[in-house]
Order: sequence, then C-alpha cells, then structure tokens
Amino acid sequence: MERFMEQALEQARNAEQLKEVPVGCVFVYRGDIIANGCNRVNETKNATRHVEFICIDQVLEYATKQGLNYKDVFREVSVVVTVEPCIMCAAALINLNVKEVIYGCRNDRFGGCTVVDVPGLLKTKIPIRGGVRADEAMELLKEFYKGENPSAPVPKTKERR
Amino acid sequence: MERFMEQALEQARNAEQLKEVPVGCVFVYRGDIIANGCNRVNETKNATRHVEFICIDQVLEYATKQGLNYKDVFREVSVVVTVEPCIMCAAALINLNVKEVIYGCRNDRFGGCTVVDVPGLLKTKIPIRGGVRADEAMELLKEFYKGENPSAPVPKTKERR
Repeated sequence: MERFMEQALEQARNAEQLKEVPVGCVFVYRGDIIANGCNRVNETKNATRHVEFICIDQVLEYATKQGLNYKDVFREVSVVVTVEPCIMCAAALINLNVKEVIYGCRNDRFGGCTVVDVPGLLKTKIPIRGGVRADEAMELLKEFYKGENPSAPVPKTKERR
Repeated sequence: MERFMEQALEQARNAEQLKEVPVGCVFVYRGDIIANGCNRVNETKNATRHVEFICIDQVLEYATKQGLNYKDVFREVSVVVTVEPCIMCAAALINLNVKEVIYGCRNDRFGGCTVVDVPGLLKTKIPIRGGVRADEAMELLKEFYKGENPSAPVPKTKERR
C-alpha cells in the first residue's frame, strides 16, 4: 500500500495549493485507483465535503458506469488516506462496508478510530491500520496551519477533521 | 417544536411508502422550514444519504439562492428529526454548527448522542433534546422492520442508522 499512500500524499499536496486542509485519499479496487481527491470544504462551502465523501461519490459513479452493484464494489475497496478519518467519515466508510482503511497520521481531536472507536462501536471487523508515512502527512498539516497562525504549530483551529 | 415534528413525521410516513427506512426531518430557519425530506439510501443506492445529508444539501442550495453565507444560516437552523441522528450525521450536524437538534425516538444501536456522545466528544454546546413524539417515530420503525422480517419487532437489521 506504500505506493498508494504516495498517491494520497500527492493529493494532499494539491489540497494545500487549493487552500484546503491538506488531506488526500485514494480508493483502490482490484489494484486500481478508482477514486482520488482532497478535501473540498472551502471550494464547495460545505463542511461535510471531506475527501472520503468526495471519493465515495466517485465510486458510486464508477459503479453506475460499469454496471456494477455499488455494494459489491465497496466491499473490495481499500481506503488509503493521509489522515485518520474523522468520526463522520469513519462511520460513513463502515456503513459502506469497505474492505480496509489505511491511514497516515492520527487525528488527535476528532479521529474516528482512536479518539472514538467507531469501528468497535459499530461492531465491524474491517481492518484498520494507521501510521503509514505518518510523518509526511503530519508535516503537511503542520505547514498548513502554521501558515494560518504562526503561534499554532499543530492543527487546533479551523475546520474540524 | 411540536408542529415541526409533525411535519417530520409526515416525511417519515412518505419514506415508508418509498420503501426507505422511515426517518423524516425538517430544518427550521427563522420560523420557516427551508429543508425537508426522508432517507434516500435505497433510491440513490448510497448508504450515506441519510435524511440529514439530504436536508444539508437543501440548505446549501437555499443559502446560495438567497445570497447568504451558509455558515450564518446553519447557525440559526433547528434540526427536527424523528429518530436520533446516527454517529455520522451527529458529527456532520455539529461540524456545521447548527442551532439545536430535536429528535423523536432513540437510535439504540448507532445513536450519535446516546450510544456515542458525539456532542460531548466534539466539545459542543449545541442543545440536543430527544423524546419529542418518540412513540410515533418508533412505531413507524417497528412497522417497517416488521414488514421485512416478522420475527424482528425492533430495528436490528438492514441499513445502519
């Protein structure tokens, strides 16, 4: 999954240019990336447009175009995301019954796997693994928030994630 | 809020006709309903299309049409929903900083206010009140699930909510 995380990090770097919180993600299905993106909260003026929701919509479109049942597709999707999904996104991914979730750095305030154990609460057995290239993912966040507020080296303000 | 809950219950009754899990909702802004609906999970084939997300999108459209900042609008929105929001939806509503949430019956499996205290975890002060016409809301759920599985009088299967 290392190379897919590189793709997710690339998406996070794009986010930074777009002045979005730098979180990137790819959804992998049978070895191929079928969805990718970064947060779109500022662009869409919609605080729920975290990257996971952007990618979920792309998968639904993909399934329709390919004439596949979206539930079958999600069951084989590996979610590779640079930052631990927030509570909302963790619940959404578990609702969709994805194959696995691989994330980079932790989300210390709103993390849906560590701060709140959403998978445990929803009694899912979906494998979840964090810490993949975590330092690079965290560095992007720190840089982003530092630009906003020099006295805040870690993300504590702005959009909740 | 009693009369708005009646409107939400009416939406839930519509859901049942559409073979969606009967959960209805209205969003109230300055005394007017600016968004309403029911779950659209089956119709859209998207497990994240809970009624709260349907209404969120309507508010965004409303704000754009009225030339208002969506954040200002959400700050004055009372969410009136027949069933306690799930974890995903509770997190979304808190992200959007709505004025208050009023719900009918509890969601004993995935409730984002009782099973998991999402508002507490996100350190919000948004007032949340449950139990408004709870029996009627629960009755609709029971009827729906009974139709699917006569041996399951309470909602324990199908879509997670």
